Amino acid sequence: MVNSYYSQDVHGPYELYDIGDFALEEGETIKNCKLAVATYGTLNAAKDNAILITTWYSGTSKIMSDVYVGQGRALDPDKYFIIIVNQIGNGLSTSPHNTDGPQSMANFPKVRIADDVRAQHRLLTEKFGISSLVLVTGGSMGAQQTYEWAVAFPDMVRRAAPIAGTARTTDHDFLFADAVRDTMLSDPKFNGGDYSASSDVAAGLRNQAKLWAVMGWSTEFYVQQRPKALGFDTIDAFVDGFMNGYFGPMDPNDLLCLAWKWQRADVSRHTGGDLAAALKRIKAKTFVMPILSDMFFPPADCAREADLIPGAELRVLKTIDGHLGLFGTDAEYVRQVDAHLAELLSTPA
Amino acid sequence: MVNSYYSQDVHGPYELYDIGDFALEEGETIKNCKLAVATYGTLNAAKDNAILITTWYSGTSKIMSDVYVGQGRALDPDKYFIIIVNQIGNGLSTSPHNTDGPQSMANFPKVRIADDVRAQHRLLTEKFGISSLVLVTGGSMGAQQTYEWAVAFPDMVRRAAPIAGTARTTDHDFLFADAVRDTMLSDPKFNGGDYSASSDVAAGLRNQAKLWAVMGWSTEFYVQQRPKALGFDTIDAFVDGFMNGYFGPMDPNDLLCLAWKWQRADVSRHTGGDLAAALKRIKAKTFVMPILSDMFFPPADCAREADLIPGAELRVLKTIDGHLGLFGTDAEYVRQVDAHLAELLSTPA
Repeated sequence: MVNSYYSQDVHGPYELYDIGDFALEEGETIKNCKLAVATYGTLNAAKDNAILITTWYSGTSKIMSDVYVGQGRALDPDKYFIIIVNQIGNGLSTSPHNTDGPQSMANFPKVRIADDVRAQHRLLTEKFGISSLVLVTGGSMGAQQTYEWAVAFPDMVRRAAPIAGTARTTDHDFLFADAVRDTMLSDPKFNGGDYSASSDVAAGLRNQAKLWAVMGWSTEFYVQQRPKALGFDTIDAFVDGFMNGYFGPMDPNDLLCLAWKWQRADVSRHTGGDLAAALKRIKAKTFVMPILSDMFFPPADCAREADLIPGAELRVLKTIDGHLGLFGTDAEYVRQVDAHLAELLSTPA
Repeated sequence: MVNSYYSQDVHGPYELYDIGDFALEEGETIKNCKLAVATYGTLNAAKDNAILITTWYSGTSKIMSDVYVGQGRALDPDKYFIIIVNQIGNGLSTSPHNTDGPQSMANFPKVRIADDVRAQHRLLTEKFGISSLVLVTGGSMGAQQTYEWAVAFPDMVRRAAPIAGTARTTDHDFLFADAVRDTMLSDPKFNGGDYSASSDVAAGLRNQAKLWAVMGWSTEFYVQQRPKALGFDTIDAFVDGFMNGYFGPMDPNDLLCLAWKWQRADVSRHTGGDLAAALKRIKAKTFVMPILSDMFFPPADCAREADLIPGAELRVLKTIDGHLGLFGTDAEYVRQVDAHLAELLSTPA
């Protein structure tokens, strides 16, 4: 299905890498799995200056580069070769909406965080010849991938900075994500995933946008009238303009693929369900970076995991913008992220 | 429409009082408006030992008496005449589902918190001859009514204990309530409010139940496996058994009437939008009692209002059960409520 939102015009520049047939944990195989990759800077001769950035639910490489990468910043393309890999199902990489044939749309196979990380590992080692990463970082589902990387490939990840995410999805987050799924699934126009254009599901996407308006920011965000500061005079205008402006063009099958994946992130699948044993495997110097006002991944949840990672440090990001502070809406949040990442990058590892 | 959930068998005993034709702020009039009232104890000869308890979204007098009233408790029917008035639209008092004719179902008029309080005032003064209340208390929308009582009838309310609610609905709560509304409105079987049985809207009600499972409790509630302590082995069983068991039998038009009302609670309608001026009117000795882990009405929101009420004290209820701690699922919460109410009742006012 054609969806102009998922295009070089909107999210580029990125390149598509075909990593070949890719067998998924749940059993199916994606034929000629394609990963959309944006790179910044130059890989040095030793191939040891690479930083991997992962993507979150609904996000692509575009927002990661816009908000987190820049000359003079911690993630500086003048110093590092920065690789942003779009997760499977996010609309740029192989996804329900851009797959033809028997795995198209609602028939797209179930993908796990661990699948993404194995796919990224294949890309980095086989296409780029990289065997060591200076840093892996990402927010939300990107943090889930960061944790998975550090647990699955402990000798390859020298530093890890999971932002606003957990290594194992909590029951509460599972329900959160389920409520998000319901907004799309309950729209009769979703039609079991068999729609002719994503805009058919406009009502469901709008309900999703509203739900993210509720759960994605925070109480204080609204008390302090942050929507006004972002240019919206009323709550309705904010929900319509900002939130639905963001979610409205997206593909519901893609989002459902991501939500299913989000719900099941769990590094303890490597260790028979023992989270402590899994996190103990991590060799990366790790900064665990929750957002103070995050209703999805509150600092307490992240602190519990940080305690299980050898040498990890908890760095709480102070903003009232909640989980969606990830968008970089609060300059002070961005400043703190940069300061922590700069410190982490200057730490021997 | 007949709905056996809203019956003496399930929610009794209560009595129906007809307060006559009742003109609403939004312009329509409810003919022969009936308030469902449960009373405990005896009104003394001076008629000065009455306590009014209000009800919350989805709640009735039954849970208020079960959880908050009892011999030897703060709200002791041996000492006080305790009157629990079901709010308009809650299914027991005049409500969309039990109204026939032109105001039936989705055509039920818009009702405001201030309407409820005026209706309750008429009931108390005209039917019971009460002109002074020892205490008004209630949780959530019941707190909204408590605040409205204290502002609208400052000389009648000697003490006020709004639990887990605010005097003016915040933007964040407006959105929360809107997401709740969406669960019902988006069910095609809701059919614009014209269904033949509330069970037609089972899917929407189940989505609502799930949303309350997300937002009603708290992250820690799930981390600490409170659903297991409440008798449910899995999250699914908890959502199905507890949450959908609760919301499933309810009437969507009734719930939508309440949600609309919740979204617009605002004591500053008395003072041209000036919240400080409205709250300054309060003469009641007031204990503002937010729940520590409440995602709807966090202590910070309640503290801001408490600061505007002469002599008010902030008493934070410490539980990880979130907003739905109101249900009394945590015995320690109930103990704290009782202790604060006992202290308030022993304070001269």
